[in-house]
Amino acid sequence: MVRPPSFRFALPSPATEPAYRAFVDRLPYCSPDIERFAPDVAGRAFVDVWLRPGGDGAAVEARLAELYAAIARGAFRVPTEVWVDRRDRAAPPSRPVLDDLIARRWLVPFDAGRVALQGPALALYDYFDEQFEAIAAEFGAARAAFPTLISIETLERAEYLQSFPHHITLAPPLRGDSAAIDAFRRSVAGGGSRLASAAEPDHVLSPTVCIHCYEAVRGRRLAPGELVCATAIGNCFRHERDRLDCAARLWDFHMREIIFIGDRDRVARARADSVDRVTRWLDELGMRYWIETATDPFFIDRFAPQAYFQLANKTKFELLVDDPGGDRPLALGSFNVHHDFFGSAFGLSLAGGEPADTGCTAFGVERFVYAFATQHGLDPARWPEPVCAFVASRNLSCL
Amino acid sequence: MVRPPSFRFALPSPATEPAYRAFVDRLPYCSPDIERFAPDVAGRAFVDVWLRPGGDGAAVEARLAELYAAIARGAFRVPTEVWVDRRDRAAPPSRPVLDDLIARRWLVPFDAGRVALQGPALALYDYFDEQFEAIAAEFGAARAAFPTLISIETLERAEYLQSFPHHITLAPPLRGDSAAIDAFRRSVAGGGSRLASAAEPDHVLSPTVCIHCYEAVRGRRLAPGELVCATAIGNCFRHERDRLDCAARLWDFHMREIIFIGDRDRVARARADSVDRVTRWLDELGMRYWIETATDPFFIDRFAPQAYFQLANKTKFELLVDDPGGDRPLALGSFNVHHDFFGSAFGLSLAGGEPADTGCTAFGVERFVYAFATQHGLDPARWPEPVCAFVASRNLSCL
Repeated sequence: MVRPPSFRFALPSPATEPAYRAFVDRLPYCSPDIERFAPDVAGRAFVDVWLRPGGDGAAVEARLAELYAAIARGAFRVPTEVWVDRRDRAAPPSRPVLDDLIARRWLVPFDAGRVALQGPALALYDYFDEQFEAIAAEFGAARAAFPTLISIETLERAEYLQSFPHHITLAPPLRGDSAAIDAFRRSVAGGGSRLASAAEPDHVLSPTVCIHCYEAVRGRRLAPGELVCATAIGNCFRHERDRLDCAARLWDFHMREIIFIGDRDRVARARADSVDRVTRWLDELGMRYWIETATDPFFIDRFAPQAYFQLANKTKFELLVDDPGGDRPLALGSFNVHHDFFGSAFGLSLAGGEPADTGCTAFGVERFVYAFATQHGLDPARWPEPVCAFVASRNLSCL
Repeated sequence: MVRPPSFRFALPSPATEPAYRAFVDRLPYCSPDIERFAPDVAGRAFVDVWLRPGGDGAAVEARLAELYAAIARGAFRVPTEVWVDRRDRAAPPSRPVLDDLIARRWLVPFDAGRVALQGPALALYDYFDEQFEAIAAEFGAARAAFPTLISIETLERAEYLQSFPHHITLAPPLRGDSAAIDAFRRSVAGGGSRLASAAEPDHVLSPTVCIHCYEAVRGRRLAPGELVCATAIGNCFRHERDRLDCAARLWDFHMREIIFIGDRDRVARARADSVDRVTRWLDELGMRYWIETATDPFFIDRFAPQAYFQLANKTKFELLVDDPGGDRPLALGSFNVHHDFFGSAFGLSLAGGEPADTGCTAFGVERFVYAFATQHGLDPARWPEPVCAFVASRNLSCL
């Protein structure tokens, strides 16, 4: 028996696609009383909400109205713009693949947002990252390996935690005394608070890669005409609450970035070149995708002005695909310029002393694997030739 | 001006080397009142202890006496045994390299236990992991990529948290309501408890790789004569308190493991073969090292019986090198058999239904890089030929 929703939250008028997406993205963070919700994908005119037992419906409705008002308050007057459109590729239609990936044990689901990859799925992961590295090498990028933990101080310097606190995972070690350690053991064996044994954390799990890079070169003054370029793959963590799954929305995932530091023209050109380079490669692979201007999912009250800035200045281009397993487009990567935002925060300057600009091109590695499988299927022999050849060179056995 | 120690804790009689090491390993966890301590490396007869202001010296002394008694109570009646000894290799003496690594920016220290690698140090990291994978391939190992987060339930099933709670890092996401998220933002900007906004964690940062593997094949019954073999590299986390550094004792590091599941003979043979294979390779590289029976650093009260079991049954062999930057040998890896401990815990069985045995061979990737540099120096042109050739094929530029 299906329980009817606790209430239907109606929007003042049907929302634009990006505004509706922004609303639905932030909705789960509005109240712990929300158990689940169902969007109106076709009409974008309402959301059905189920409350947890004892939930305060009036308070939740007020919070949703406040959120939608913040989003509507001018954030989306600038329309998104499509830069590259390959939605017309002739290819079999995308199809959901998660169940098949699991049945073949290419993907082993542990719990929401945590999976193991093996066999051809891991070979695809390696193929994609090798290609990302090859693209980075064409920019002469220095190779770096950064930690997974990042200090709260560094993220705060980048104003990251003020803008995107909602998906953060803290990393507190246990307190160093044996009383706390014993209490932790008891809490694990018999219930009770585990947090009570934790030290106040100075670190969180890194939600992104490029901020490590700015920290690593903090205070650097560039030579005249210099464009610093680096690449790294990083283990990243974003906790998307009830939206976590075992396919496209992982809590624990990997991102490959190519990072640029230099003057505005050079950074802009590097971004444009990386769009061209990625486009050529994906076209060779026969992928269906598009690239459009986008906004980051800033947390509620920071949202309106920053989103406006991003769209108006075309600072973020997103690489998107249709997701046959989800109800909206899936971002595989992005091409970003940050103007002198990080340069000022981390004391990076041009030869003349002005703050340097930065930019980064980012790829969600597991999402490339997933999207490729939805478009090209699960028979490696039918994959495009370069992928097929790479995968055939690996040990594909599965546990 | 050097402050004299608060007190000298004298042992009843000079300790054996392993007992003294076990004592000094656990000492930092005895009390938060301990600010620092200085071991008696030469005589192993005492430890000098500095207390924090207001620290309770009598309580700390009592705790230390208790700890040493637990260790002495029979844990070390079985002498360690050296299986392979290559401490006689003709080579220049090992020398401390951390300052040089930092000066060349091959290693960028962020804070205690967190570093970035780049240039030739990252190329060495890649070389070592490629070699580990090649060794795993000779065993026909399936390749897997596991998450970095591990559930407390899984670790508890493996009894890990009862034995090694002391170095655990928790991974609590923030609570999902906007009040908690706003409080977190305020705590970051203005001080206050960050933990107050955290949800009770169901996951921690994985301290090891192989337990993911047992979870991935939980409940598996093997075919007659089957030896399951898998390999994975994992990001691992062990918070060693004041002993964290930027060289050999990282909080955030990587481990490559080769995991075996089968009957006792096959697992024992696989371990012996992996010792032989690693020995041949390290000999080709002209490394100075030795392999001896060892015990895991179990937390205080679990220590005595398990350590005795490990030594008596030769379940753990450790690959050790001298560390010119530290005061005791450094473990680069280990070769372990676990009898049916994990097989019973995760329902892994042989064809006849009895619990399967497991074993694993583990390599600390960053430690191989560090130890190699202490023995072979920092001039890639003078590195052994296969290393030199591999490194020369990479982009070695540094940020």
